Amino acid sequence: MEEKKAVKTVVSGMRPTGRLHLGNYWGALRNWVELQDKYRCFFFIADWHALTTAEDTVGLRDNTRLLVVDWLTAGLDPERCVIFRQSDVKEHAELALLMGMMTPISWLLRNPTFKEQLLELYKARYKGQEDKMRKAEGVTRALAEAHGHEAEETALHSDMATYGFLGYPVLQAADIALYGADLVPVGKDQLPHLELSREIVRRFNRAAGKPLLVEPEPLLTSSPLVPGLDGRKMSKSYGNAIELGEDLKSAEAKIKKMFTDPKKIKADDPGHPEGCVVCAFHRLYNPDWKTREEECRSGKTGCGACKKQLFELMSPGLADFKARREPFEKDPGLADRILAAGAEKARAAAAELMSAVNSALRIR
Amino acid sequence: MEEKKAVKTVVSGMRPTGRLHLGNYWGALRNWVELQDKYRCFFFIADWHALTTAEDTVGLRDNTRLLVVDWLTAGLDPERCVIFRQSDVKEHAELALLMGMMTPISWLLRNPTFKEQLLELYKARYKGQEDKMRKAEGVTRALAEAHGHEAEETALHSDMATYGFLGYPVLQAADIALYGADLVPVGKDQLPHLELSREIVRRFNRAAGKPLLVEPEPLLTSSPLVPGLDGRKMSKSYGNAIELGEDLKSAEAKIKKMFTDPKKIKADDPGHPEGCVVCAFHRLYNPDWKTREEECRSGKTGCGACKKQLFELMSPGLADFKARREPFEKDPGLADRILAAGAEKARAAAAELMSAVNSALRIR
Repeated sequence: MEEKKAVKTVVSGMRPTGRLHLGNYWGALRNWVELQDKYRCFFFIADWHALTTAEDTVGLRDNTRLLVVDWLTAGLDPERCVIFRQSDVKEHAELALLMGMMTPISWLLRNPTFKEQLLELYKARYKGQEDKMRKAEGVTRALAEAHGHEAEETALHSDMATYGFLGYPVLQAADIALYGADLVPVGKDQLPHLELSREIVRRFNRAAGKPLLVEPEPLLTSSPLVPGLDGRKMSKSYGNAIELGEDLKSAEAKIKKMFTDPKKIKADDPGHPEGCVVCAFHRLYNPDWKTREEECRSGKTGCGACKKQLFELMSPGLADFKARREPFEKDPGLADRILAAGAEKARAAAAELMSAVNSALRIR
Repeated sequence: MEEKKAVKTVVSGMRPTGRLHLGNYWGALRNWVELQDKYRCFFFIADWHALTTAEDTVGLRDNTRLLVVDWLTAGLDPERCVIFRQSDVKEHAELALLMGMMTPISWLLRNPTFKEQLLELYKARYKGQEDKMRKAEGVTRALAEAHGHEAEETALHSDMATYGFLGYPVLQAADIALYGADLVPVGKDQLPHLELSREIVRRFNRAAGKPLLVEPEPLLTSSPLVPGLDGRKMSKSYGNAIELGEDLKSAEAKIKKMFTDPKKIKADDPGHPEGCVVCAFHRLYNPDWKTREEECRSGKTGCGACKKQLFELMSPGLADFKARREPFEKDPGLADRILAAGAEKARAAAAELMSAVNSALRIR
């Protein structure tokens, strides 16, 4: 006699940084598409988070719209989940402000990502400037001793270390708690961030005098590693990606260029699937990838045939993606309308929580 | 031929900490009452700021209502200025979030008030606990060297040093900029805070690519020092205050208890107005206070007569205050309605600015 459980809530977000590719799809989006039918899901475009490290915001607005289109392309459905933009729901800022008043600075300084990302910012800003890079290298050295006081001092006194940058875990905690998330899809590497959110929630609940906010649990997701065409990690900046909305012709050409075993020159040379991009993709798209790899090793199949089969296996999915994009190409206002409708739903949920929060903290 | 100038905007706020007294009136409110007819004024109850140092929020809601009543008692008029509660206008949190992303942490660490207030918190929390006080004293020593790294380290690693506490100058900058304040009434001691707001505004404008936010100028106000009944600073916590809504009988009794020159025992003893509370009050309420002091020095008037005259001088004002309080005593919902109407006006102004901000930062 199992008791009926209410549907659990899932919240997750993504920064708008441009068109998504198959690495993003297999890394997170494919999982989201499955979650939308099992849980009450809120997926948000983290445009305020994009500002924490952005030195300028050219493209932010366009990237936001591109991201909605990509999400729908991947199979998210605004009828089955709430899709919205963080900045449309001011309650994210309101709850973050309140949570920040309960979060010791020392918790935020402990966050290693703060120091790592700061270093990335330095590197990007001073690229090619020898003298400036020396300064950045000094910071690098200090940051390497990640728990040293020197590192903290240096990090804190950099003009790139802004207040908002230090506090992005507080905003993250608010993003999640605002919708009463029971579960947050994360990879193992993000567990420390979720733990920080949980700590902030516990501290908040102590101040509120009751378990008002839900302590989110991790929904551990294993995502396969998707290599780019050249074998490195698939990444927009490496120019080795297949985009989510890639058309079939262009996808076929890209598959032909995929890096394979350099020792397999003739079709019947024995191949080594390890490190072969085509084989890695078969693992994703071919249920019978094991046979494929045996045939590669034995020299029964050549790379050309292997690529041809991969393209055939990938085509239906890519065609689905294309089809789901079409409405957006025909109707440029559609993405905005989806965001507006999603914002309305998100705001209703957020307003309900904030009313309870304001009453518990005796603000109102 | 003078050119016509548009009316300038003034913004100021107060934390809700309980009933106001004549010290608060002469220190700030009396000035606000004058400003409301010269400028476009926004006066807000800084309830979010009250959270930055509050360990609990019992009384916050009530104190907010008390403050509205006290403001109206003093002569602010919701028809001539906008009176509202900060937490009713979420745009304060939104703009603070955005400004925080442009504010280097080092600017906030430079703020001496951060360290001073932290020390006050320590003292309050560990009052009477010897072992804990020793810890606090360690912090005291460190904080005394206000620019030392040790002090910063210690301050940053205290669990009382929260993220929101460090960032209150950012919220302050947002409070002011949200309404395009040209002028902010401040005392000389607050000039460094306003300068920090100006720095944040300049940095924001650089990011926005145009002078979108107004750089506020100080409106220097000199406020007379109002002693309490015992000669120390008038303060609720010293129990030496005359409240804004004090009734005449009780005010008369308090004036009789006022500290005077202990050397003037008989009425015709020569007195010393320096340090005499009654004489200090004559300076505030008696246009002819100089004659009064001469008569005190020469022994022409005794303290009893001097107090009696003071009560007569203060009575009309106190009676006005009482009269302005009456509607609130009869109608407990009136304060809330005034806040609701003010929030609506403030939100309209704030929404207009945020629309320009979001467009300049390309969020929307």
